Amino acid sequence: MNILILSAGTRNKVVQYFKKELNGLGEVIATDCSGLAPAIYDADRHYIVPRIDAPGYMDVIFDICRKEKISAVLSLIDPELSMIAHDADRFRELGVMPVISFPELVDTAFDKYKMAQLFKENGLKTARCYLSVEEFTEARKRGEIDYPVFVKPVCGSASIHINKVSSDEELQGLFSMYDDLMIQEYMTGQEYGADVYIDMISGKCSQIFIKKKIKMRAGETDKSVSVHIPELFDQIVSFTEKTGFRGIIDIDIFEQNGEYYFSEINPRFGGGYPHAYACGVNVPRQIIANIEGRENPVTVGDYSDGIVMMKYNEVMIREMTDCE
Amino acid sequence: MNILILSAGTRNKVVQYFKKELNGLGEVIATDCSGLAPAIYDADRHYIVPRIDAPGYMDVIFDICRKEKISAVLSLIDPELSMIAHDADRFRELGVMPVISFPELVDTAFDKYKMAQLFKENGLKTARCYLSVEEFTEARKRGEIDYPVFVKPVCGSASIHINKVSSDEELQGLFSMYDDLMIQEYMTGQEYGADVYIDMISGKCSQIFIKKKIKMRAGETDKSVSVHIPELFDQIVSFTEKTGFRGIIDIDIFEQNGEYYFSEINPRFGGGYPHAYACGVNVPRQIIANIEGRENPVTVGDYSDGIVMMKYNEVMIREMTDCE
Repeated sequence: MNILILSAGTRNKVVQYFKKELNGLGEVIATDCSGLAPAIYDADRHYIVPRIDAPGYMDVIFDICRKEKISAVLSLIDPELSMIAHDADRFRELGVMPVISFPELVDTAFDKYKMAQLFKENGLKTARCYLSVEEFTEARKRGEIDYPVFVKPVCGSASIHINKVSSDEELQGLFSMYDDLMIQEYMTGQEYGADVYIDMISGKCSQIFIKKKIKMRAGETDKSVSVHIPELFDQIVSFTEKTGFRGIIDIDIFEQNGEYYFSEINPRFGGGYPHAYACGVNVPRQIIANIEGRENPVTVGDYSDGIVMMKYNEVMIREMTDCE
Repeated sequence: MNILILSAGTRNKVVQYFKKELNGLGEVIATDCSGLAPAIYDADRHYIVPRIDAPGYMDVIFDICRKEKISAVLSLIDPELSMIAHDADRFRELGVMPVISFPELVDTAFDKYKMAQLFKENGLKTARCYLSVEEFTEARKRGEIDYPVFVKPVCGSASIHINKVSSDEELQGLFSMYDDLMIQEYMTGQEYGADVYIDMISGKCSQIFIKKKIKMRAGETDKSVSVHIPELFDQIVSFTEKTGFRGIIDIDIFEQNGEYYFSEINPRFGGGYPHAYACGVNVPRQIIANIEGRENPVTVGDYSDGIVMMKYNEVMIREMTDCE
């Protein structure tokens, strides 16, 4: 049972966890478009592949699946998730289980405005958002929202171009400079992250890990502490099962005045997943069970409170000539 | 022989290297003002201390030196370097060797304008810089410099407030908003970093490691490759020995049109030091030799070319109740 991890980048821990959980049952194969992606060297074997937007990219991946007798595939970068989801059937024809949600949901998660609508339709609170200056101005007149606000691209990952905006001039300026922006209510409350697994066979939400974010660095959770919030457990189980997410997803949540606001979903391993794993929320093992045709029992909240994760830099050293 | 590492923060690798090199000869004691500093948990023992600007801070450190029979002390954060340097004699009275340069040099290194003067006085190239809009405007009229330029605080570490500025309006705006800014020639060339050890006994530059920076992330070198540049070796040896730097320092250099421009010096272990260590440039071992009263032989350039370093996230996991 070999597992293929696409665009592994610097996510060495995820590669290491799969190797450990497979424990000789199978191998981990990793890819990246760069030879300077440290995570690929922690895999049993790796391939340097074209960039995901190169013509014929997916054919290269399908070839690797055949050659390496791959049983399951997952990607660690946002722009590739949609590709995997839309090509899910072609993977299945090759006997490969794509660890990803349904394509419409993956596309929705990538569009922050549509995602906000989906949260609302399912009874969850989310930050108010507007697609145009006019819409926002009307809402402001009604007293629904006021400055400061966030301005961000509707589609986009990481914290690119996210600006706190406090005046009409700035707002007009940004909208005249960039396309596809949205205006979002400014959230200042405590941030939480949830690592969630939805069983690929039963469709049941089998595990949730919630961490309170203590410190961010370059758009990533740098320090966090594990917490139990039963209200969030209930909301997440209900939302993910009703909408049909599958596999591993990462949810960002704000707490504002005692209420929880759902901010976004990344339908992949989040950058803070090592915290969950260290607390026993073993998603690689659940994925392996699913590959073997076994459903995972529901063990939501099965971890300890008050466990802290602190990131630091480790280094991978290689000869340059072995990286090309 | 116990070694004290102050403000260890997330610099786990430096703590690990000292433990490894001491190899039972002595212990590593680490401090930080936060219990959420992962590096302190890699030390043999640690202390949570007040913030460095708290009254009586140095007395707390001196007490630790006495209690733990410390033989040498070093700090990993910029604002503390000057404190250690100025209190060097008080450390020596306690039998502690402060691994730091002379206080005037540490103060100079923290002032980017003075440092630029020091580079120039010693015949090294450095980016042109100006302390006022008027001075810059005059130089611009003379054709000495033109937009774009960097605007940065004269004193300050990391990449705080560093802006590329392209017009008089922006420049005036920044100078009206912030104090103590300087205007610097915009450098676009290849960046290099040098990890340099100047023997604490002989005052000779005993080791230099040069890395070409391949990728930066959040102001830190994320990927780099080892290189030999004999011209830079000569310049660094001559400059550090003439000016009297001591111990471990980190130098930032730009290459522009085939010439090397010295940018700044951090008189401490740089964030990219693990690359040098992995290539055999063993500064902890040289520090230990100095503590034992032994001079280090000069081994400048004693490492291999073409070795790549790639950083990735490791995690330290602890119970919150053990972090307070």
